[in-house]
Amino acid sequence: MHDYEVLAREVMARCETLARFSENAGGIRRTFLSPPMRDCHREITNWVAPLGCKSKVDAAGNLRIRYPGTGVNGRTLSLLVGSHLDTVPNAGAYDGVLGVVISVALLRAIDGRRFPFAIEVVGFSEEEGIRFGIPFIGSRAMAGTLDEEVLERRDADGISVREAIADFGLNPAEISSMALREDENAIGYLEFHIEQGPVLENSDRSLGVVEAIAGQSRLKFIFIGRANHAGTTPMNLRHDAVAAAAEWIGAVERRAKSVPDLVATVGAIQAKPGVGNVIAGEAELSLDVRHRDDETRKAAVEYLVDQAKHIAKSRGLEVQILELVNQQAVAMDSFLSGQIAEAMQKAGCEPYRMVSGAGHDAMIMATKIPSAMIFLRTPGGISHDPAESVRVEDIAKAIECGVQLLDQLAASSKFLSFMPRT
Amino acid sequence: MHDYEVLAREVMARCETLARFSENAGGIRRTFLSPPMRDCHREITNWVAPLGCKSKVDAAGNLRIRYPGTGVNGRTLSLLVGSHLDTVPNAGAYDGVLGVVISVALLRAIDGRRFPFAIEVVGFSEEEGIRFGIPFIGSRAMAGTLDEEVLERRDADGISVREAIADFGLNPAEISSMALREDENAIGYLEFHIEQGPVLENSDRSLGVVEAIAGQSRLKFIFIGRANHAGTTPMNLRHDAVAAAAEWIGAVERRAKSVPDLVATVGAIQAKPGVGNVIAGEAELSLDVRHRDDETRKAAVEYLVDQAKHIAKSRGLEVQILELVNQQAVAMDSFLSGQIAEAMQKAGCEPYRMVSGAGHDAMIMATKIPSAMIFLRTPGGISHDPAESVRVEDIAKAIECGVQLLDQLAASSKFLSFMPRT
Repeated sequence: MHDYEVLAREVMARCETLARFSENAGGIRRTFLSPPMRDCHREITNWVAPLGCKSKVDAAGNLRIRYPGTGVNGRTLSLLVGSHLDTVPNAGAYDGVLGVVISVALLRAIDGRRFPFAIEVVGFSEEEGIRFGIPFIGSRAMAGTLDEEVLERRDADGISVREAIADFGLNPAEISSMALREDENAIGYLEFHIEQGPVLENSDRSLGVVEAIAGQSRLKFIFIGRANHAGTTPMNLRHDAVAAAAEWIGAVERRAKSVPDLVATVGAIQAKPGVGNVIAGEAELSLDVRHRDDETRKAAVEYLVDQAKHIAKSRGLEVQILELVNQQAVAMDSFLSGQIAEAMQKAGCEPYRMVSGAGHDAMIMATKIPSAMIFLRTPGGISHDPAESVRVEDIAKAIECGVQLLDQLAASSKFLSFMPRT
Repeated sequence: MHDYEVLAREVMARCETLARFSENAGGIRRTFLSPPMRDCHREITNWVAPLGCKSKVDAAGNLRIRYPGTGVNGRTLSLLVGSHLDTVPNAGAYDGVLGVVISVALLRAIDGRRFPFAIEVVGFSEEEGIRFGIPFIGSRAMAGTLDEEVLERRDADGISVREAIADFGLNPAEISSMALREDENAIGYLEFHIEQGPVLENSDRSLGVVEAIAGQSRLKFIFIGRANHAGTTPMNLRHDAVAAAAEWIGAVERRAKSVPDLVATVGAIQAKPGVGNVIAGEAELSLDVRHRDDETRKAAVEYLVDQAKHIAKSRGLEVQILELVNQQAVAMDSFLSGQIAEAMQKAGCEPYRMVSGAGHDAMIMATKIPSAMIFLRTPGGISHDPAESVRVEDIAKAIECGVQLLDQLAASSKFLSFMPRT
């Protein structure tokens, strides 16, 4: 048996190695099929070659590493394990990358043992949505839910997704046929990822089992009052858009605090004309609402829309409301999550069941095959930032838990008999 | 006696004529000593030449038109009347200009009569502070309170105040000696100006007597919390700078509404990073507080500073506070204001005593000589906007009131015996 701490330290070192492959010096930025992505693929391929794996990059730019299995009654099965290799600008070294590198460490940890299923490590090409403003290009292509029109979207330099794929030496025409097929017998997807939040740290835990990925609403609110002189307009004759916005932000916060696990955020606010001596005639705000239960989320959004209208009316303002995103919650596979919980316990971690407030590739893969996620504690809850970090001991637990899980799944007739949806 | 309505219509037409002298086509913008200011000077000089006036442009770019008086016991006296000729960008046709044009109309309305004092119509060169970011350059130069270092301030094109003066054909070296001197015997300054607020309109009045120009505090508040993921950070673990700012904006509004005549405004707010799916780590806000009573204003600012600190502390944030402006209230001359009230009554307007929330040249002139202001109703309270307007009947009342005032002052031994401060 491996010393998981040693493997965990190797994982940290490997994440740091991959962090050097960046579009800009002095920071980490690695967007969809950018040149450093090629270095990433080469490096990881070199790590797994001695383990008897075959690696390829598929038409959507996903790195796919296959460690063969023994099959079940002549049927070839595969378990997908991984995360994404792209990053946000000014990123940390672990968001996405850590899940791929832990998956590779799993292959090291099993020491050449074969399972009934092949283990396919996936390094998704695109999760963050930075280059084209569209997230999950890699996993959507694999799940077969990528709209053809996405291929025509262009980046800031006018290069389309299709052109970017061709420029990388891949064949965009293969995208339409690359979705997981029944005959591939992919029977599950497991993703390791940093939590990107403070919940595990705050409850003093290494790992979490993700039960669901929260649904998400994003809206834009524009309060329209009347711009006027800050010195000459008495308080009772004002139609101040910033004051109305502030009252509504209070309502957003109160609602979110009053409903368990609901989060609601006003992250953006802009006043017009936006100068100190003019009462704002307009205030534009963002609203982001998330919850595991879609009805709870929708009720909160409806309430906050009503509140905005009520506050605007009571102050003689108007409010314009635009819905930008209305994305349903996605449940993780309960059988796989149960198995993860059991594996965690064996690895000495009390399993902590939680909801992911952020979207992940597992949310996309879940539309096709049973999918589950393991979260790793994120110190300070800090992610999408150079200060993003992860603890060696937590990585060791994650690898140990992963090995346990592989053994459990190999012994589960229920798991091995899964027939993929087509 | 003149038909004041006819004169008022001429005033409207003349304001429209001057509105054509702009730095940009299709809008009004006429900043300090910009080329259209020369057209303005020429046009107004042509209007007053037939009235027996001498015109000049002083070293600070102020247009000064002198209609001679008879003097008192061999002593030459002068009453200054006017406002400013510069505008904000995208201005209306009346802010400032109207006061100068009404002053010219006064010279028409007196039909060649002489008063013990000369009447000097002043068109100040700079009140808005657009070109150099410094307001009141014209009136400060005349009041002798213009710091020499202001002459070195540069505009967006790198041209200094000194150079702008020389480029216009004036001599910046004369600035230091152009302040009103005792031997000029300027015994008062009267300014006509649009109210730029809704108070007169709301109380259905044409004219107001300005008793004081409100003191003004301007501050910058920066709430510093912690930026974090909007989806993964539970409400109870947030340090949301926008939520803190919103709570404080509520306190600003409540305080202003609870103290008579206090106005307090948050006109600018910026969140960082300012995107919808990130809890704001920073929120920067402006605060503008005004009141006629300096103690009331200071008490409000102190309270709001305390509130900001209290709100920040209770949420685990910090707050940085910078004072940008702390300008005392300026009382208008009570004798002159009383005379104006009397003249208004004679002109058929019930005098409405009010405070100006905006700064004016009269505030600067008041440091040197007795100064007073007459406000004209501003439809919709709209100013600094192309929609700015004024009513013919109100202009007629203002001219009539001005003529009454001249007669009263000519008969006032108290006024005529005033000795200027030096």
